Amino acid sequence: MSIENFTAYNPTRLHFGVGIINKLGKSVSKYGNKVLLIYGKGSVKKYGYYNQVVSQLESSGMSVVEYSGIKPNPVIEDVNKAVELAQKEQVDVIVALGGGSVIDTAKVVSLAAGSAIDGWQIVKGNEKPGHAISLICVLTLAATGTEMNAAAVMQNHETGEKLGFVNSLSFPKESFLDPAFTLSVPKNYTAYGIVDLIAHALEAYFGEGEPSLTDRITFEIIKDAMEWGPQLLNDLNNIQLRANIMLDATLALNGLTQYGKKGGDWGVHAIGHELSLLYDLPHGATLSIAYIAWLKIQQDRIPDRIKKLGASLFGETSVDEIIDRLSSFFSKTDSPVSLSEVGIGEDQKQKIIDQMNSNLVSGMYHKLNDEDRKKLVELML
Amino acid sequence: MSIENFTAYNPTRLHFGVGIINKLGKSVSKYGNKVLLIYGKGSVKKYGYYNQVVSQLESSGMSVVEYSGIKPNPVIEDVNKAVELAQKEQVDVIVALGGGSVIDTAKVVSLAAGSAIDGWQIVKGNEKPGHAISLICVLTLAATGTEMNAAAVMQNHETGEKLGFVNSLSFPKESFLDPAFTLSVPKNYTAYGIVDLIAHALEAYFGEGEPSLTDRITFEIIKDAMEWGPQLLNDLNNIQLRANIMLDATLALNGLTQYGKKGGDWGVHAIGHELSLLYDLPHGATLSIAYIAWLKIQQDRIPDRIKKLGASLFGETSVDEIIDRLSSFFSKTDSPVSLSEVGIGEDQKQKIIDQMNSNLVSGMYHKLNDEDRKKLVELML
Repeated sequence: MSIENFTAYNPTRLHFGVGIINKLGKSVSKYGNKVLLIYGKGSVKKYGYYNQVVSQLESSGMSVVEYSGIKPNPVIEDVNKAVELAQKEQVDVIVALGGGSVIDTAKVVSLAAGSAIDGWQIVKGNEKPGHAISLICVLTLAATGTEMNAAAVMQNHETGEKLGFVNSLSFPKESFLDPAFTLSVPKNYTAYGIVDLIAHALEAYFGEGEPSLTDRITFEIIKDAMEWGPQLLNDLNNIQLRANIMLDATLALNGLTQYGKKGGDWGVHAIGHELSLLYDLPHGATLSIAYIAWLKIQQDRIPDRIKKLGASLFGETSVDEIIDRLSSFFSKTDSPVSLSEVGIGEDQKQKIIDQMNSNLVSGMYHKLNDEDRKKLVELML
Repeated sequence: MSIENFTAYNPTRLHFGVGIINKLGKSVSKYGNKVLLIYGKGSVKKYGYYNQVVSQLESSGMSVVEYSGIKPNPVIEDVNKAVELAQKEQVDVIVALGGGSVIDTAKVVSLAAGSAIDGWQIVKGNEKPGHAISLICVLTLAATGTEMNAAAVMQNHETGEKLGFVNSLSFPKESFLDPAFTLSVPKNYTAYGIVDLIAHALEAYFGEGEPSLTDRITFEIIKDAMEWGPQLLNDLNNIQLRANIMLDATLALNGLTQYGKKGGDWGVHAIGHELSLLYDLPHGATLSIAYIAWLKIQQDRIPDRIKKLGASLFGETSVDEIIDRLSSFFSKTDSPVSLSEVGIGEDQKQKIIDQMNSNLVSGMYHKLNDEDRKKLVELML
């Protein structure tokens, strides 16, 4: 045990529960009366979420302009177009209705439009925005935790990069988490969300610092997801199970798992981002593939840390057994644990290695070198 | 499991770690340049904390006025005098250097001086302040959690009341938690702090709502304190153990243990407050006495809830055994589990019952009636 110095700060006001959407109009109206509503494709309309949100906004006297069509693995092109709209319409507040892609897009839009700086320069960390348009989130997918943190991930096909950044201006002012808004998430994306939240907890755990209480809490988030996740996948309309996973996902990446740490490792996410860039794979699917390979790389380097995790998750056992059991869990959710399961074969090996080497894929704490990256790809195939 | 609707909001910026005090001056100067420094008795001077704080403030160009002499179980008289000083000196920001008593006093001062409303009327909930002077805390005791929440407890000897209140304007803007600032806490108060934080977690757990993840996290806070607490009591200069308990105490009452709940129960605190009022007992000591009696009252009413707690803390066992083991734990820390241990005998029985009845002592969720209060006093003796 050792607690590293840290700062805890999270000003997002989180409204959680069935029917909580009925407080949206009143909350948003505190920030102005011209709203930019950002959402993805048609599903929020199909399932009625869009109507509920717009009705809340309009009945509170707000006028709404829209930018829609955000795709999974969000791209900077959408940010640029939405910024143009936000500036032209001089919106007071942004409402993001969707999952991680929509909210992350909205975060960059709120910074770029709020401070008149190019979005990609913000993502790259080249320019520091000084102001953001207030952002309110209505979450429709339990996975990324972006609804209660200051991070976002963005893709740029032109430069071939997928990058994450953190900016404290990016905390949503308020976020609305109604588990009923996740009832429409299909089985595979529900599973990827579960994998994603577990991966976030693991990235935090494998970062620098071994704070006793934080380790404990991180394990409980993972165990909660491992207990309720498989039950939810067999009972997708169960609102209590949806609620449990939704809370797990938020707490896995709202700062709590980093108390007493210098930060997370994020090596597995870095690997996953490269796989998404190359093959447009769902984020969660890349993480189940990459985590098993990463643990095999690390098993002789940090056996005690892996054993402490395993003891809490599975009871005292060997490192091999821990990795096997985690792999079995991912497989039980139908998340892939190898590239071959998603149709990527040996012929792609060198391409992936080259991509990972060219972007110097590594963790923040457990550094990866060329040799590691080659071995990782071999283990993932 | 069932998650109740809830709102999570905690804007306090928490700086944690050895040496973190070196960031104090810069942080406080963001809020103005005239500081009211509030502290207790001489111990903060004796151990050098006072000098470090004043040197931070002065070297950042701030001018400092002081109000000192806050006692354990803080009283409204001090609030009133400090408000007068704050108004006369037109301070921009309040720095509280101390434990729960000092910080709670500073919270009421910041509301009363900031909105020109009588402090006791705020505590009673009779008047709603609209503004607070910014409050920065430097914590010297791991116990109450007030450094990262919006609650305060205050005593009024004139009216014979000890009351708690919550006001979202009372979140400290920033709090500095340096475990080294708790090294001087003597063994008995270190133990009372451990009891206090465990009691906070228990009050949350026994409130309405049974959210799966929150239950888990609450248990881990208690287990962490039960693991490191006794070690710390045998090794009071161990900074890592001080840090562990400090983090436990903050997380036991910063809102986290109430996610997915309608609130805590707080019946045991209500009992403890009456004992403090009557006999000026340390807050933590009243809680170890009251909790054991309260659990005995509740054991036939909520056996499943007590068993779930016990299973996590001690492994599967009977309700009787769970209460015994918790009682043994408190005793191991030298915290009292009966009134006789603190010299209060049968002759006081009716006086305590009368006091508890006259203030209608009860929990928020598990209501107590006259019969319960009588039985509780008998069990505490």
